[in-house]
Amino acid sequence: MPKKVIIIGAVALGPKVACRLRRIDPDAEITVIDRDSLISYGGCGIPYYVGGDVADLEGLYSTTSHAVRDSEFFKTCKGITVLPRVEATAIKRKEKKLVVCHLAEDRTEELAYDKLVIATGATPFRPPFPGADLADVFTMSNLHDAKAIKDKIATGQVEKAVVIGAGAIGIEMAEALTDLWGVETTIIEMADQVLPTALGRNMARVVENKLRENDVNVMLAERVEGINGDDKTGVKSVETANGTVPCDLVVLSAGVRPNTGFAAQAGLALGSSGALLVDRRMRTTDPDIFAGGDCIEMRNLVSGENTTMPLGSLANRQGRTIATNINGGSSHFKGTVGTFCIKVFDMAAATAGLTFNQAKTAGFDPVYAIVAQHDRAHFYPESQLMYIKLIADRKSRKILGIEAVGAEKDAVKARVDAVAPLLAGGVDVDDISGLETGYAPPMASAMDIINNAGNALDNILEKRNRPIDVMDFIDAFQKGEAKVLDVRGPKEAAPFMEKYNGQWINIPQAQLRENIHMVPADEPLCLLCDTGPRSYEAQILLDNKGITNTKNIQGGYGMILVTDKEFIA
Amino acid sequence: MPKKVIIIGAVALGPKVACRLRRIDPDAEITVIDRDSLISYGGCGIPYYVGGDVADLEGLYSTTSHAVRDSEFFKTCKGITVLPRVEATAIKRKEKKLVVCHLAEDRTEELAYDKLVIATGATPFRPPFPGADLADVFTMSNLHDAKAIKDKIATGQVEKAVVIGAGAIGIEMAEALTDLWGVETTIIEMADQVLPTALGRNMARVVENKLRENDVNVMLAERVEGINGDDKTGVKSVETANGTVPCDLVVLSAGVRPNTGFAAQAGLALGSSGALLVDRRMRTTDPDIFAGGDCIEMRNLVSGENTTMPLGSLANRQGRTIATNINGGSSHFKGTVGTFCIKVFDMAAATAGLTFNQAKTAGFDPVYAIVAQHDRAHFYPESQLMYIKLIADRKSRKILGIEAVGAEKDAVKARVDAVAPLLAGGVDVDDISGLETGYAPPMASAMDIINNAGNALDNILEKRNRPIDVMDFIDAFQKGEAKVLDVRGPKEAAPFMEKYNGQWINIPQAQLRENIHMVPADEPLCLLCDTGPRSYEAQILLDNKGITNTKNIQGGYGMILVTDKEFIA
Repeated sequence: MPKKVIIIGAVALGPKVACRLRRIDPDAEITVIDRDSLISYGGCGIPYYVGGDVADLEGLYSTTSHAVRDSEFFKTCKGITVLPRVEATAIKRKEKKLVVCHLAEDRTEELAYDKLVIATGATPFRPPFPGADLADVFTMSNLHDAKAIKDKIATGQVEKAVVIGAGAIGIEMAEALTDLWGVETTIIEMADQVLPTALGRNMARVVENKLRENDVNVMLAERVEGINGDDKTGVKSVETANGTVPCDLVVLSAGVRPNTGFAAQAGLALGSSGALLVDRRMRTTDPDIFAGGDCIEMRNLVSGENTTMPLGSLANRQGRTIATNINGGSSHFKGTVGTFCIKVFDMAAATAGLTFNQAKTAGFDPVYAIVAQHDRAHFYPESQLMYIKLIADRKSRKILGIEAVGAEKDAVKARVDAVAPLLAGGVDVDDISGLETGYAPPMASAMDIINNAGNALDNILEKRNRPIDVMDFIDAFQKGEAKVLDVRGPKEAAPFMEKYNGQWINIPQAQLRENIHMVPADEPLCLLCDTGPRSYEAQILLDNKGITNTKNIQGGYGMILVTDKEFIA
Repeated sequence: MPKKVIIIGAVALGPKVACRLRRIDPDAEITVIDRDSLISYGGCGIPYYVGGDVADLEGLYSTTSHAVRDSEFFKTCKGITVLPRVEATAIKRKEKKLVVCHLAEDRTEELAYDKLVIATGATPFRPPFPGADLADVFTMSNLHDAKAIKDKIATGQVEKAVVIGAGAIGIEMAEALTDLWGVETTIIEMADQVLPTALGRNMARVVENKLRENDVNVMLAERVEGINGDDKTGVKSVETANGTVPCDLVVLSAGVRPNTGFAAQAGLALGSSGALLVDRRMRTTDPDIFAGGDCIEMRNLVSGENTTMPLGSLANRQGRTIATNINGGSSHFKGTVGTFCIKVFDMAAATAGLTFNQAKTAGFDPVYAIVAQHDRAHFYPESQLMYIKLIADRKSRKILGIEAVGAEKDAVKARVDAVAPLLAGGVDVDDISGLETGYAPPMASAMDIINNAGNALDNILEKRNRPIDVMDFIDAFQKGEAKVLDVRGPKEAAPFMEKYNGQWINIPQAQLRENIHMVPADEPLCLLCDTGPRSYEAQILLDNKGITNTKNIQGGYGMILVTDKEFIA
């Protein structure tokens, strides 16, 4: 008898399970239900639809060959039944029946299953402040929202917008609103940095500056207390602890909550996040019920803890695993190392593993290096500075995380992707020094930034390099607690000598060996060069001459440039 | 007493050893000798200097902060003695002395060492045909050659050029000559494909077509018999087994030979290639003599065999290892997986591991999948087709190699770099299906091409997908041995229906389920769609209906497009 498989949810994971299962089991009766009318869309593409990169909404639910992915498509091309506007309300696990409601007719029905797949995703969180449910307060949960926002902007109804939450979606939406439409946009974030779960503070600062450069107003460490307006005249402003931000539109991107209410009621176990617990075969605590995507917890393979990670890429891979296992195969989804990337205007950021703070919380003793270097041979005309932060555990030298920012987005991705797949298995600092990635002058340096990140971290762990974080340096310098010894050329140093008279000393590297006597030996010195290597060599030279009260500014002038433009203005 | 360290060779590895050693041992007496006057240059940058991307020769031997890397620079900035125009002629190992000749004065001297480093590199091979040593027959061995070629072209002396050898340097030089200077350029290659040691024939064909598109004349499977001309009037033509190619300039890029004569005479062991044998600590068979770079053999970590791999990136990493070990540390260079990348006009190719043929020779039973897919979300405006070939061993499912070509060079690199570092440790097909790389629509697909390459190979290994290579398909089709069942839309299929009347059948995927009776059941059918997934689903559907004499064209129409434009013209 053909296997009856019901899949709840027809976006990302659901269709992937259905299509893969159909290919490996031609006889299964596969039914996919979804409470929405629009299905199988690329939800991650919504900001690019709003921002105009994707012209039509249909682009987000069409195949590469421009077929619209609707019920008819799934029927004729895939042999799969999709029922839109049908919501799952309960699971009768003993009888193996799913109770559903046909929303259009408000009719209840019971569907028998052999295997059930929960792919219900997550719902954007609406914080409990006044006005969060006003009509012009949008979340980015589905294509209806996307269309409503774009229509509103395109008809000239939006001059000012507030985005609440500086996570990935918040940033992507801020770019969409600003870049194409010129909407005056403010991001308000509770944490003291953007992308608080993805990046450490230094790299987040680079992203923040890129947003500001592109006229996005960024408010950090700011609590939203309410949204003013009404459903007739629309949104008027957002009220924060420190003031009022006028706006015509609010985008809420303050995280998501897994849609697991009916699953919990059926007795399936949830993790502390409220998402479903699954094993490596993607089975819930009921072996006939699988789950995946945004409604489950998965293992973080670096910290060992459970986490949620709402990403279409993970959902698709989990979907394949589920289909294989429903068909009697054995496929494992081991977890995630939190690989993430984002385009931010003409720059990209990427990360994998844990941030410094996450590593500390997870019980490691993290140490990091920041390296600034060209993304290809420095003599190659297109080369631009890229920045990598590499984090390892002090004792084991195990790599815990990597973060990168830079102008060439695929090059940024290349560096992080070369390390990410190694994190789960365990990889140490020396492995990164020796990492074998592709080399040709138009794409990399002979000693590539990724290898140099390993080398720099090795030198720090071996105590040959005593670094100071650029943000700590700026802080100490501004408090008058440190002087700068600039080992660049006189031309580069001149403006700073003038601006910071006495606190900024210049001895070019080539003259340092013979001018040690000019180095103030008894006060804290921060050593500076373009990107770090020359100041590191200066530190070693000074150490050998007994001048040891020095710190090497990580990433040098290049890192200051993207961290704090005011400092060097 | 300070350690006396002599390094023979001042390009790439030599300077790296010297600089790193200086940083970790402030007291060592470090001397670097080189027979050339120009030192510490980026040799891999020569084609970009000739092609104009790098304006001045100095760009190739300057630091990122525009300091010229000459003897003075090494003395003042690094505390290292560099002696140019000094050649090593013999090693007196018992006395630990190096015999050198000061070339300018023709004076011999003996230098005592505690540790010796051989970084003598390799010399371009001049095949033993007549004319190979004419003045206008250049090799790309040093900056003098580079300058001579560029000067000759810039003064209008070159209208036609022949490049002998279609390896990386040959292709980069062909691009340099054609792209900026409009020199009519012919590449002549003995093998029946370009990049014969780096790519399989399909991917090589894509590179070859890109060269042809850009007006490079490519002659394959062609033997050069001599070069006509004389030193006074210059080169006239290149004589091949099949004809005469007129030219004013010849670039020889027919491989290199390691410079190990004096080392062999000193009794150091060489491998079968003539390059030095070293252990993982980069020591030759004399533990006081280290060697690295283009003059050594290293382990291929996939095949287990020894290989030479003349790449600046490997040399730099080996240099760090040598310095650490000279200083009493313990650093290992384990070998290479042959990671390689190259820009070819507005395209790039990258590879790691073994090609199909290399895998066979190494005793594996290789199976491969070719996947054509967009390099980012297909709805994202910049997205373009990328092509990946993934090769695994049939029985162990271990990944043996990966090749990629595509328009966005950093995106191509990203895919290969994500796999390359895993090859040494052993990674299987399922690991690639589940590979966790960064996802955001502007940089990847939710189910990225790299994961789909794993999935496609899994399906082939599981015998769910019976593929045919696009080149085999074209061959069989042209011989009339196969028909095409095109499951794309009627508009896409129409021109081929007309051109290949009767041999080209069209049933769009959405209509196939209900039109099985129209499929010829008794003759060989090759299934075609845009890039492969729909024809794969068609194959499964037909299999279930008992029509099993089908093969799925790997990479579909997209792969034909870059393989054989004539076929679809």
